Amino acid sequence: MTDVAQAFVPGHITGFFTSYSDPDPTKAGSQGGGIALSKGISVTVRPAKQASVVLNGEEIEMGAVYRILDALQINAQVRGTTDLPLGSGFGVSGAMALGTAFAANTAFDRRFSENELITIAHGAEVQAGTGLGDVVAQARGGVPIRLEPGGPQDNKIDAISARGRIEYHVLGELATDDVLSGDTETLTEAGKQALSDVVSEPTMTSFMQASRQFARESELLTDRVQEVIEDVSNAGGEAAMAMLGETVFATGTGLSDAGYDPKVCQIHPCGATIETTIEQ
Amino acid sequence: MTDVAQAFVPGHITGFFTSYSDPDPTKAGSQGGGIALSKGISVTVRPAKQASVVLNGEEIEMGAVYRILDALQINAQVRGTTDLPLGSGFGVSGAMALGTAFAANTAFDRRFSENELITIAHGAEVQAGTGLGDVVAQARGGVPIRLEPGGPQDNKIDAISARGRIEYHVLGELATDDVLSGDTETLTEAGKQALSDVVSEPTMTSFMQASRQFARESELLTDRVQEVIEDVSNAGGEAAMAMLGETVFATGTGLSDAGYDPKVCQIHPCGATIETTIEQ
Repeated sequence: MTDVAQAFVPGHITGFFTSYSDPDPTKAGSQGGGIALSKGISVTVRPAKQASVVLNGEEIEMGAVYRILDALQINAQVRGTTDLPLGSGFGVSGAMALGTAFAANTAFDRRFSENELITIAHGAEVQAGTGLGDVVAQARGGVPIRLEPGGPQDNKIDAISARGRIEYHVLGELATDDVLSGDTETLTEAGKQALSDVVSEPTMTSFMQASRQFARESELLTDRVQEVIEDVSNAGGEAAMAMLGETVFATGTGLSDAGYDPKVCQIHPCGATIETTIEQ
Repeated sequence: MTDVAQAFVPGHITGFFTSYSDPDPTKAGSQGGGIALSKGISVTVRPAKQASVVLNGEEIEMGAVYRILDALQINAQVRGTTDLPLGSGFGVSGAMALGTAFAANTAFDRRFSENELITIAHGAEVQAGTGLGDVVAQARGGVPIRLEPGGPQDNKIDAISARGRIEYHVLGELATDDVLSGDTETLTEAGKQALSDVVSEPTMTSFMQASRQFARESELLTDRVQEVIEDVSNAGGEAAMAMLGETVFATGTGLSDAGYDPKVCQIHPCGATIETTIEQ
């Protein structure tokens, strides 16, 4: 037993998505497209008498993480550290779930494969109602296009071949579970159209256009987000809304060129990884 | 059009494999297990009047690369640079194929998805007879376990969750096409057993054990390789044979501890990536 293990999971912005329910949480989830970010979440797992979850030094409730500890039958302290804000569309809850699964597997020598760990984390996130597709996208990295819903046993993922700078500007929070527990028919229709557009032309330009159209047609676009996207567009850039948060993201220097003072990161080509080295 | 684009593809050591033929080269291939390496191949593609392939400054014949240029209908110079030796079991030909596909897609704005590019490279490598599973493994990164043969439309890949130091010691070359064009029944039987062992316990220790057993049972093990593996074992380490080359690899400091002066790299958690940034 390694005792303490750490995993890194990239942040993930969703540009568009659909929602599929299924009695089996490992088959439920979403199709969609997003961007894995070089800013992410480091998750450390260590044995403890009582389970606890700490994010940036503060104890928090995170249903998915507790479900994973239960599934692996372990008591542990889970510590996450990140520069990304919670509830603003960066997949922080998905990353905490996936990072917990990867790190706990090593710390407690559980001997699951990566696909098994992704399945456990995806199922826990779906059951907790905090996300539908972040986990599998964060496991892949890059610019993942989720062609089918569900965990790695059921889904199919492709990706746009791209690297580059991503800027983002956070206006506020949106509660994922409120949206996902409501009527998702309209957003699923819009998500299918966006997916079809990106599959027929898998480029960053088409991804950004499809994401903007999805934000409008899904009726998730807020006035404040729309204003910022228009500012970027007027300055000659490409921006869209991060689902689900009141957050605008842009490729290249889109937000800077429009006079904003955005946070800056990169497309992260790599999926979630354990950071602890193998023991000899 | 970006004109010039560069991709990075990790090297890949195969520990065990099976061989499946199919009239469709994108469905043919192999199951198996391997390790993606932090040492890899940088591939640059630029437009040229006549197609040419250069590796470490020397023009070489590389059938798979020419097939990809044909498939994408482009004339280009392909330049690869690497510290890894050709023909010694590091997947250099697979990396040249995959890197060519990724870089050419960007340089010539061909708008293929990652899965499409992997499929093109895998099919070209199979047709050229230089490899069966390196391309899809190098697209995934980490410690990929190929559960099914073929390109990403048909196969299924899992992975062992592991990081750490890998050492290797090259004794000589083996010609992949000689082995693959011969009787592969014995090695496929041995490969299936190794895969089954690793799937039931996806750890580095089980991977190394299954790889050693595969080398013996497939009858690909050479006397010189066996000697080095035994030296590592006697020093308390874990080593196996890289398929297909007369090369020994070890986890951690296995070869160093046995008194060898090995090359050193790391498990590379990331698959092949384009390195050129997106254009705005």
